[in-house]
Amino acid sequence: MPSLTEGILLTDQYQLTMAQVYYRLGIHERPALFEFFYRKNPDYGQHQAGYGVFAGLDPLLEWMESARFKEAELEVLRSHKTRAGEPMFGEDFLRWLGRNGSFDGLTLRAVAEGRVVHPQVPLVAIEGPLVQAQLLETALLNKLNFETLIATKSSRIREAAGPAAYVLDMGLRRAASGAGNSATRAALIGGANRSSNVGMSHELGLQAAGTHAHSMVQAFMALGMGELDAFRAFAEVYPDDTVLLVDTVDVLESGVPNAIQVFEELRAKGHRPVGIRLDSGDLAYLSIRSAQLLDKAGFPDAAIVLSSDLDELVIWQIYTQIRQEAPRYGVDADALTRRLVFGVGTRMVTSWGQPALGGVYKVVAVREDGEWKPAIKVSETLEKVLNPGHKKAWRLYDDRGLASADVLTLSDEDPCAEPTLTLHHPSDAGKIRRVKTAACRLEPLQEEVWRGQRVAEPQPLEVLRERHRKDVELLDPGVRRLINPHTYHVSLSSRLWQLKNQMVEALLQGS
Amino acid sequence: MPSLTEGILLTDQYQLTMAQVYYRLGIHERPALFEFFYRKNPDYGQHQAGYGVFAGLDPLLEWMESARFKEAELEVLRSHKTRAGEPMFGEDFLRWLGRNGSFDGLTLRAVAEGRVVHPQVPLVAIEGPLVQAQLLETALLNKLNFETLIATKSSRIREAAGPAAYVLDMGLRRAASGAGNSATRAALIGGANRSSNVGMSHELGLQAAGTHAHSMVQAFMALGMGELDAFRAFAEVYPDDTVLLVDTVDVLESGVPNAIQVFEELRAKGHRPVGIRLDSGDLAYLSIRSAQLLDKAGFPDAAIVLSSDLDELVIWQIYTQIRQEAPRYGVDADALTRRLVFGVGTRMVTSWGQPALGGVYKVVAVREDGEWKPAIKVSETLEKVLNPGHKKAWRLYDDRGLASADVLTLSDEDPCAEPTLTLHHPSDAGKIRRVKTAACRLEPLQEEVWRGQRVAEPQPLEVLRERHRKDVELLDPGVRRLINPHTYHVSLSSRLWQLKNQMVEALLQGS
Repeated sequence: MPSLTEGILLTDQYQLTMAQVYYRLGIHERPALFEFFYRKNPDYGQHQAGYGVFAGLDPLLEWMESARFKEAELEVLRSHKTRAGEPMFGEDFLRWLGRNGSFDGLTLRAVAEGRVVHPQVPLVAIEGPLVQAQLLETALLNKLNFETLIATKSSRIREAAGPAAYVLDMGLRRAASGAGNSATRAALIGGANRSSNVGMSHELGLQAAGTHAHSMVQAFMALGMGELDAFRAFAEVYPDDTVLLVDTVDVLESGVPNAIQVFEELRAKGHRPVGIRLDSGDLAYLSIRSAQLLDKAGFPDAAIVLSSDLDELVIWQIYTQIRQEAPRYGVDADALTRRLVFGVGTRMVTSWGQPALGGVYKVVAVREDGEWKPAIKVSETLEKVLNPGHKKAWRLYDDRGLASADVLTLSDEDPCAEPTLTLHHPSDAGKIRRVKTAACRLEPLQEEVWRGQRVAEPQPLEVLRERHRKDVELLDPGVRRLINPHTYHVSLSSRLWQLKNQMVEALLQGS
Repeated sequence: MPSLTEGILLTDQYQLTMAQVYYRLGIHERPALFEFFYRKNPDYGQHQAGYGVFAGLDPLLEWMESARFKEAELEVLRSHKTRAGEPMFGEDFLRWLGRNGSFDGLTLRAVAEGRVVHPQVPLVAIEGPLVQAQLLETALLNKLNFETLIATKSSRIREAAGPAAYVLDMGLRRAASGAGNSATRAALIGGANRSSNVGMSHELGLQAAGTHAHSMVQAFMALGMGELDAFRAFAEVYPDDTVLLVDTVDVLESGVPNAIQVFEELRAKGHRPVGIRLDSGDLAYLSIRSAQLLDKAGFPDAAIVLSSDLDELVIWQIYTQIRQEAPRYGVDADALTRRLVFGVGTRMVTSWGQPALGGVYKVVAVREDGEWKPAIKVSETLEKVLNPGHKKAWRLYDDRGLASADVLTLSDEDPCAEPTLTLHHPSDAGKIRRVKTAACRLEPLQEEVWRGQRVAEPQPLEVLRERHRKDVELLDPGVRRLINPHTYHVSLSSRLWQLKNQMVEALLQGS
């Protein structure tokens, strides 16, 4: 019964215990506003990202369409007992859940999938009955945190790959069990060009990519044949799509020479061989030496696919080594980098170095007597104090047209109304910046995506990918740096800054 | 259409391109033997595990029961085109796949789920038609790698928690999207006592655990009430299950005093309060000070639940600090540790520090003329050379009854037949150990779990958990160490060692 574990019960128990408390108090349908945001860009240990890539929204909306309390779900709650052996949930509450335990009272405003995003900015604002909003938390965090994390890593890997022909996602086998398809989707949004994942590629309108494994060569050898027989058999079946894995025996002594022999046979029959793949050893060195052999044999365009625990830093290092070492072998470094293809697996689909995005879901306002009452939580660290209240998020573009800051304002503010806009650092009172509104452009970042149901059809993958590419182009090159990136500013308007400070003051005096 | 992305097309493209090559050569139904094993215990950066915990088998078998090529799956392959625009897969091959593209010709022998396992030991042996065995690779790796990784981390966390009442999995929100339920399952196999995940806990026969979040206190405050009102409302609804989160405002000035007031009200009505939860700050210090206040108020048994980025090292450090600091406040350190509960999330379900287990699926033999021909792959590093051939795995127990080594032999060997058994290190020729077979016990590690279909019903979670607990008890304490564990021996029999060496020799001379 997958629906029981994949439906609305894909949640934490405390959402349900809290829901019953709200029900008993009669505040379960009180309008509340929650926000999803993250506090820090992924930090991979040696290097922190300069931006994030928002993903996972469409799968979340799809889940919301069918997740609701039906009889089977209520039956599960009916079986829950207190320590005194009594039913944990009252029948009146369960009846209410049976009628209202869905997301049809919620409105979601969200940043569009694929967009470049930054810490502190609400990526989704969730408004509606307190219990419905609370019930969404766990699934929302599960879906948005992960895809955003992977799309971000993929974007960095695509940045590092730069001139290479393409980046191929091959992480399915190393993705978390059940997360392979979301990892594939996020990787494709963030910049991977193709994926090895057959089913999910098809679902997203792409053809999966892939050729053969070591096991094929090994099987031929176990049956008394050799690497050359294996290559020949493959080329026979796929004369126009031949990519040969050359490192089962010995790359330079056996693999590449055998591949070249098969490539020559293909050429003689009028076909164009595609390339070779290297999956072990010193990839920079072996790609130079392989290029040298392929060039000499008259295959200067044959692709060289590299794989084996690649990530953005490993790719960067491969390029650096190629630039240093290629001339020694008479190989043109630039030409070589253009024929490279990177097959990336484990380190992309696990976001190696930072395997979770700490995105949070926080109540920022509750409605009472027709008015939004801002909510706050004070932490030991000022950076972790919530930005309270009903807000809007904007992106500010400078006169070059580049994204210069994201700005949070109260919902009823028009940040362009005054000739000068004052931007406050979210937690450091001393940091203030003023911009002339005439010289810049402000773009609202959120749009309504759900009002009891989806407000628009899902968009094709290509739209999300294009949106991502465009947004990355609009970043300052300093923010795009792989290591030690320039900090992108996220600022508060004066009114929001004042509200936050007043609330913190009041709370500290009260306690 | 989830079946398309979750069924047999949850695979890498190269499995299909290779399959068609085998089909064209007429070797697609040739019996082959693949093995799943991993090469190194998870290494979390500062510390490497001394053992693994095998998990994920039952979900794999469940998937195998329904995964097969039906018309919709064949239609996907029909849409695949070569670079020349031709169909990638021939109709004759697709017809064969439609009839035989499932796992009904395979036999799987596997280690039982929940068992303690070690590198190099085949955890699953997959035997059957070459194409069927190859088609299983991606899904098998995806499911077994991840659950084994998480069960291992969970086992370490349970080890570190030692005397604490229990460990609670609360990682669903930070698990990879789609992997929340497998993470919960693996965490529960590896030692977590309960989970917050409602649906999956129920599926596994447990009741989910959880109380309330900061958002409840914040919502009350936004509505003009306070922390005490929130606590009281919660206690009113759950008088026998009251755990109060005390760090929304200020733990020692507000949270704990308010909790004690509500606890006293509960006690007056004849109820027993369960405890408090701390989710931020210096957890060791705050738990000591909270214990002091609770003790003074007459609640020495109230549990103290700790959460906030916990893992085995953080828990260990909390214990160490408590032992140093508790006496200063007149708190008994031992009594305090026994009332602790650890809520573990992100770092368990992502296996923080090592977010993937590099388990591999390798062909080790192919059958020809009624005989198994061993397959091998030579690497630059001797440790990565496959152990070839049709094998059996055994666990050797010493005269104390403790597990002393795992031993790989050829399938037709009886390791107890001779009075002395010689154990060879898998890659270091110099390392040899001899044991008297009379003084020890050898246990076969694999059992048949699939022969065209499951050979037994799935076992309840409790059986797997008990199996895990028993196996951990049978480890040498040195192997159980969290840091710098003693290396558990995995050895080859003399005959297997000789076969491996002969094959490496032959291959090196041949190349």
